[in-house]
Amino acid sequence: MINRENGVACYQQLSQILIEQIEKGIFKPGSQLATEIELSKRYRLNRHTVRQAIERLEDEGLVYKIKGKGTFVASDKINYKVSKRTSFTTSILDVGLNPDARLLDSYEIAAGKELSKRLNIQSSDRVIVLEILRFVNKTPFCHTTSFLSKTKFPELRSLISGSFSLFGLLKKHYGVDALRKSSTFEVSMPESSDMDMLNISPKVPMLAVKSISKDQKGGMVEYCITKFRGDMCSVSVDFNGEGR
Amino acid sequence: MINRENGVACYQQLSQILIEQIEKGIFKPGSQLATEIELSKRYRLNRHTVRQAIERLEDEGLVYKIKGKGTFVASDKINYKVSKRTSFTTSILDVGLNPDARLLDSYEIAAGKELSKRLNIQSSDRVIVLEILRFVNKTPFCHTTSFLSKTKFPELRSLISGSFSLFGLLKKHYGVDALRKSSTFEVSMPESSDMDMLNISPKVPMLAVKSISKDQKGGMVEYCITKFRGDMCSVSVDFNGEGR
Repeated sequence: MINRENGVACYQQLSQILIEQIEKGIFKPGSQLATEIELSKRYRLNRHTVRQAIERLEDEGLVYKIKGKGTFVASDKINYKVSKRTSFTTSILDVGLNPDARLLDSYEIAAGKELSKRLNIQSSDRVIVLEILRFVNKTPFCHTTSFLSKTKFPELRSLISGSFSLFGLLKKHYGVDALRKSSTFEVSMPESSDMDMLNISPKVPMLAVKSISKDQKGGMVEYCITKFRGDMCSVSVDFNGEGR
Repeated sequence: MINRENGVACYQQLSQILIEQIEKGIFKPGSQLATEIELSKRYRLNRHTVRQAIERLEDEGLVYKIKGKGTFVASDKINYKVSKRTSFTTSILDVGLNPDARLLDSYEIAAGKELSKRLNIQSSDRVIVLEILRFVNKTPFCHTTSFLSKTKFPELRSLISGSFSLFGLLKKHYGVDALRKSSTFEVSMPESSDMDMLNISPKVPMLAVKSISKDQKGGMVEYCITKFRGDMCSVSVDFNGEGR
């Protein structure tokens, strides 16, 4: 229980109690933590103190909040493997979890300066943009923005429906075997659109991965930016493996 | 100047003014921002308002603080390239910058359960631990903790002095040609030791990279954890290149 005379702030005592309960497995990874009201009654603390204690756990990455749902105990991070040939689907299936993807939006833009360099096309050329939200066990896991040349894949947007594999569609309809050439890793704090799509608080750092994929002959296929929830995953690169 | 009658909070107006000045190049990347006192005098604002405006820029990654030195304008991130063969030194020299390394500490421990698996040795075997701080243009850039088998590299600790290349020493003294096999990327918020070593505030997210290197015959050479300042760098992986 909370000792009000030992000189240790009440919120620190409560966060220590909760840490021990998480370590003992009283609150299990992925399960909901007791609510602020429950904790406030159980330990006779005001809501502000309880909130401070939970914020400390959140800062340490031990719990995370889902808007409108509550506070949950963090799980071990999902290790997402990346190699020359990786699809989100196979990588997640390999670790025994359940992948899913939803096309949020698709549209076309002029390539402009930056994208024309990335895709090796003219700046006036049209670019297909796909906004894809991917799930692991029904939890939003990462958000991908893909850029592809409209000239190379003219009907691509109309080919996408339901659960889909982008590289699968490119293979089936255009005979293109896409291989990952390079990935650049960066960290960033979430923008408000990231917070909405991935249901995360402003405190959760993101792992952003910018990747380039080419076809067998070295022609550009796709430039994409994937933003992963930093609290949910690590990304592994195998420098030798072909992957699959 | 600040307009006190347009309904926009003064700190927001000031941060907008500073953003425009950074975009125009009045404050250049890497240079010091005007101090709180200067800004407070120039715009007739109290220190609290100025601090709020600077905090907003910090949250957006446009400026960063160095303890005891002041606030600086963020530069474009340094792109650190990683492949089978990369040394910190060559990767930083390749982008035209000036690398340096300092051995902070070296000691020996028993491998224990976790490290014995990583290094493929017995849990009672001794492990050499090297704590290395690396600099780019004299700014602390990343912190590496390296783990190597004491049996394989018995005198390693006594071979390190001044500026050094770890893989260079392994090659010269043990005939070992180390190759990177895998790297795992994660994001985390800094611990207090990270903040001290890298001179960063608690708001700067870290890019943590855990790597395994092996020798030509596939024997384990090194397991290391490098924590990069997330505001200063991105890390690129080339899935084809041998690097150097």
